[in-house]
Amino acid sequence: MNVFLTLPVAGQGLYDITHRVRQVVDGARVSEGLVTLFLRHTSASLLIQENAAPEAKNDLEAWLNRLVPERDPLYTHNDEGPDDMPAHIKAMLTAVSVSVPIAQGAMVLGTWQGIFLWEHRHARRSREIVVSVIGSV
Amino acid sequence: MNVFLTLPVAGQGLYDITHRVRQVVDGARVSEGLVTLFLRHTSASLLIQENAAPEAKNDLEAWLNRLVPERDPLYTHNDEGPDDMPAHIKAMLTAVSVSVPIAQGAMVLGTWQGIFLWEHRHARRSREIVVSVIGSV
Amino acid sequence: MNVFLTLPVAGQGLYDITHRVRQVVDGARVSEGLVTLFLRHTSASLLIQENAAPEAKNDLEAWLNRLVPERDPLYTHNDEGPDDMPAHIKAMLTAVSVSVPIAQGAMVLGTWQGIFLWEHRHARRSREIVVSVIGSV
Repeated sequence: MNVFLTLPVAGQGLYDITHRVRQVVDGARVSEGLVTLFLRHTSASLLIQENAAPEAKNDLEAWLNRLVPERDPLYTHNDEGPDDMPAHIKAMLTAVSVSVPIAQGAMVLGTWQGIFLWEHRHARRSREIVVSVIGSV
Repeated sequence: MNVFLTLPVAGQGLYDITHRVRQVVDGARVSEGLVTLFLRHTSASLLIQENAAPEAKNDLEAWLNRLVPERDPLYTHNDEGPDDMPAHIKAMLTAVSVSVPIAQGAMVLGTWQGIFLWEHRHARRSREIVVSVIGSV
Repeated sequence: MNVFLTLPVAGQGLYDITHRVRQVVDGARVSEGLVTLFLRHTSASLLIQENAAPEAKNDLEAWLNRLVPERDPLYTHNDEGPDDMPAHIKAMLTAVSVSVPIAQGAMVLGTWQGIFLWEHRHARRSREIVVSVIGSV
């Protein structure tokens, strides 16, 4: 089963989408299986990371922004704005597809794991992901 | 269904393999499911990224080459040439396995997404990937 | 089929878990399919990389330690020790979920590929992963 979700975003940041994915998994009524999330964009990412301490999320973002700054003279692809090429590089370093096993009807996420949509651009208003559930009842 | 593909390469670079993967998916005649690509090597990567602007691809390569240069005095593993250890590190930072959901018989790639084999070594002539398709007719 | 494995660790390092995963795949008696490994933590990683030369593994670790050092003044999330925030960043740059196709009853790993649990913290004693096998007999 595939469900296409349009997720609102408002500028750069980590958006917790765990509850949206959980709704799809619950609706699929699969007891054992695999859920795969796929992001249909090249300037944002999917990330499974710390869901509690907001400082940890802030540090992840600050660290990646420092590693991949805007207006690096190396960039030749500038026509879509100064945040575009850094966004592609950040997406390259993280992931657009993540899979989580389903056991006893629920994702096997650890206690401190959340699923995040990581928006790397300033002006996007939404992103689309596909939630694919495979398994047996 | 698994299909082993041998893909030609000619030096470092991003090779668009979307059409090769699409051929396998088309041949599998799966309506809903999941295709997983797996690269059987440790010094190359699989990447889903921008398929249009060649400058974007060039910048991705230039940026990663600057982050992971050859002849870094840190490297102790040098016996396979100066491009070997950087290739392992680049592979570590990207991916050897990516999954894409299949809906209505086709991969749900976004408009600007292509699937690339990223060759990190200079002298390799081919790489092998496995295209695994799971799903229902 | 899902199998939860508790894997012992003793400080930072790459722990080869290929044989543990292979045992699960063998036990599943699946001829064609997909095995997905999922790590239930946010400060360690799963990595498929070079299984032979120990220098290559040492260089991967040394390189990532240099890129993501402890006690970076950028970090604000310090309450769990100086190795905590670097561990989250290293996990962000690598992966917590990897999938490997199964063909003729075995994972299609390349000759030089091993599966590693990458512990990024100093004092952890174990980590939990889920090995999910999907496929047909």
